[in-house]
Amino acid sequence: VDFDELEDFFSRQRAIRAYDLSRAVDDATIERLLRAATFAPNGGNRQMWRFLVIRDAGLKAGLAKIYEEQALIYTGGRPLQNTTSWREVPVLVAFLSEKGGGGPSIFPAVQNFLLAAHALGLGSVLTTLWKAREPEVRAILDVPEEIEMHAILPLGWPDRRYGRSKRRPVAEVTYRDRFGAAW
Amino acid sequence: VDFDELEDFFSRQRAIRAYDLSRAVDDATIERLLRAATFAPNGGNRQMWRFLVIRDAGLKAGLAKIYEEQALIYTGGRPLQNTTSWREVPVLVAFLSEKGGGGPSIFPAVQNFLLAAHALGLGSVLTTLWKAREPEVRAILDVPEEIEMHAILPLGWPDRRYGRSKRRPVAEVTYRDRFGAAW
Repeated sequence: VDFDELEDFFSRQRAIRAYDLSRAVDDATIERLLRAATFAPNGGNRQMWRFLVIRDAGLKAGLAKIYEEQALIYTGGRPLQNTTSWREVPVLVAFLSEKGGGGPSIFPAVQNFLLAAHALGLGSVLTTLWKAREPEVRAILDVPEEIEMHAILPLGWPDRRYGRSKRRPVAEVTYRDRFGAAW
Repeated sequence: VDFDELEDFFSRQRAIRAYDLSRAVDDATIERLLRAATFAPNGGNRQMWRFLVIRDAGLKAGLAKIYEEQALIYTGGRPLQNTTSWREVPVLVAFLSEKGGGGPSIFPAVQNFLLAAHALGLGSVLTTLWKAREPEVRAILDVPEEIEMHAILPLGWPDRRYGRSKRRPVAEVTYRDRFGAAW
């Protein structure tokens, strides 16, 4: 992969919260994204990640209720704009791991999954709003105590085209040798 | 970016611990990698990540001592094989964040950095062995209490060519709707 092409691709990865619900996401597509996710770095190649693909309407509704209640707390009561409910998203994908085996982090695998989705034109968004209600989420999904829960991602086709991300210049967030020393 | 090309690229991202020390890594290259890192998802685009690029020989030696002592504990006393000491690596890059602003995780940015390095033919490895000695690491790098430390990555040109990653089939680590239910 050419570096400039990759950087341009990275810059067009956006948080997609609204989906075109006329288009489904099939299992084969999800399996391709998960395959891409598993090539991420992980501690000692123990591959302790576990994935949970959620399509069941009752489960999605239960998770949506929790997510939306937490979102209202986060926004101070304003309803979410331009956001497809988890009730309606084609699929939710949860990232879990066997306890103690997560290695440095499961989030490199999450990022591979998001980038792979982006390469296919799919959209998703990384959120941890549900984390404050983790016991209820575990109960809904039958996740046992010894399994760690890290992320739940909605997945679907974006409602529209999105532009590039805007980011601060690197020099403003980078230091040389010691924290606080100018880059 | 074509999906199949991206998947192949992901599958060739390896943990590189041994470097060709005859080749330097210049500041402009590091800045390109950090730019790519900043396009990762982050909470509310607050961009609370901070990067620390460490070239000072004394600082690298201090971090190397800690890392190597922890590695010996991890291996049960066997010296590390095929691993360039942090004393000698061209550069170490630390990923930090302003407290409370890290959003879901800084590791998507770490993964962008690693993928960008891979695209240029550079190598790195994600390790958290130093975490058990974080207070000493903070003292060496002047990292204040209100800043969170997440990762320290060595960066250099790989000592040789590496093959693909080997991973378990997705179906072995994926469940449907409820944890434990076959995919």
